[in-house]
Amino acid sequence: MHASMELCVVPIGTDVSLSDYVVACERILEEAGLQPQLHAFGTNVEGEWDVLMTALRRCHEELHAMGAPRLQTSIKLATRTDRPQSLQDKVNSVREKL
Amino acid sequence: MHASMELCVVPIGTDVSLSDYVVACERILEEAGLQPQLHAFGTNVEGEWDVLMTALRRCHEELHAMGAPRLQTSIKLATRTDRPQSLQDKVNSVREKL
Amino acid sequence: MHASMELCVVPIGTDVSLSDYVVACERILEEAGLQPQLHAFGTNVEGEWDVLMTALRRCHEELHAMGAPRLQTSIKLATRTDRPQSLQDKVNSVREKL
Amino acid sequence: MHASMELCVVPIGTDVSLSDYVVACERILEEAGLQPQLHAFGTNVEGEWDVLMTALRRCHEELHAMGAPRLQTSIKLATRTDRPQSLQDKVNSVREKL
Repeated sequence: MHASMELCVVPIGTDVSLSDYVVACERILEEAGLQPQLHAFGTNVEGEWDVLMTALRRCHEELHAMGAPRLQTSIKLATRTDRPQSLQDKVNSVREKL
Repeated sequence: MHASMELCVVPIGTDVSLSDYVVACERILEEAGLQPQLHAFGTNVEGEWDVLMTALRRCHEELHAMGAPRLQTSIKLATRTDRPQSLQDKVNSVREKL
Repeated sequence: MHASMELCVVPIGTDVSLSDYVVACERILEEAGLQPQLHAFGTNVEGEWDVLMTALRRCHEELHAMGAPRLQTSIKLATRTDRPQSLQDKVNSVREKL
Repeated sequence: MHASMELCVVPIGTDVSLSDYVVACERILEEAGLQPQLHAFGTNVEGEWDVLMTALRRCHEELHAMGAPRLQTSIKLATRTDRPQSLQDKVNSVREKL
């Protein structure tokens, strides 16, 4: 099952700067063979469901290992069966009409 | 790894009533041995990471099988390593101070 | 315009315990005449759009005043024009079918 | 109060294609003087709190006027008092370390 996912990991009880944690997640996603699309409120990725979920778990494990005592991740997870649609397709379908 | 999760599955391109889809998810979560706590904006569950994620995938598969062509699920996923904390603990820690 | 809202305010760069911040939000929502329904991943409220939004702003102002340098709030905001639906209606429509 | 916001409006009970609705929101945000940054899971904007919230309300009003009977919007709302930080700053702080 193909899926698209946005994830935004928020460490709680850490310093006010979160960029080191976001960098760690980007690297994990890339090592999983994904092409993360970083934006100001998270990272968008697409791929096989299980690949996405394994990478998500590794993000939690790694950020705890880096010292974050508590994590709350916000995720949007999208699947569709009517037709394939990439992350870029989603953006293009809007851009074409603007 | 123990985790807490809120999930809110939104079918797109279906009828305006979503309760049949929510009912299907509740049953899947219960069959997974979880104790879903339904509220007006989703369902809260807690348990082993992999149990939660397997149930989440089954929800997507089942709702597509029911005819939803497109799904977007909003998830909050929480883990902590400093101490165990149940869903009820989270609510109690606030209620005690109110 | 009537609306339903779930909010989950996450302070960043603070202590690992968030209950004092959640308590402050609950009080602000109650002082606004709302009846917040606390659960393990946020608080659900319903009412006039502007009342909800004014209370939301006060939550951010108060939590900064309490010392949180950075806040990220996750919100679900629901409106419908086909028929009125309370928070309780949403839960009941599922419970009746379980 | 300056704020950053991600919004993702999901119409319920409509056709499976959502691009017309997203286009309408982009135009409302631009008419409000904002510079929406569209991505595959929403749109990021920044500006004065009240400007953002007025635009958000107009999005709900317009999409209902377009025929969507039911809307559920997912929002992330960020404020900070320790230092100013633009949407671009957030992305740059990660990119510099990658």
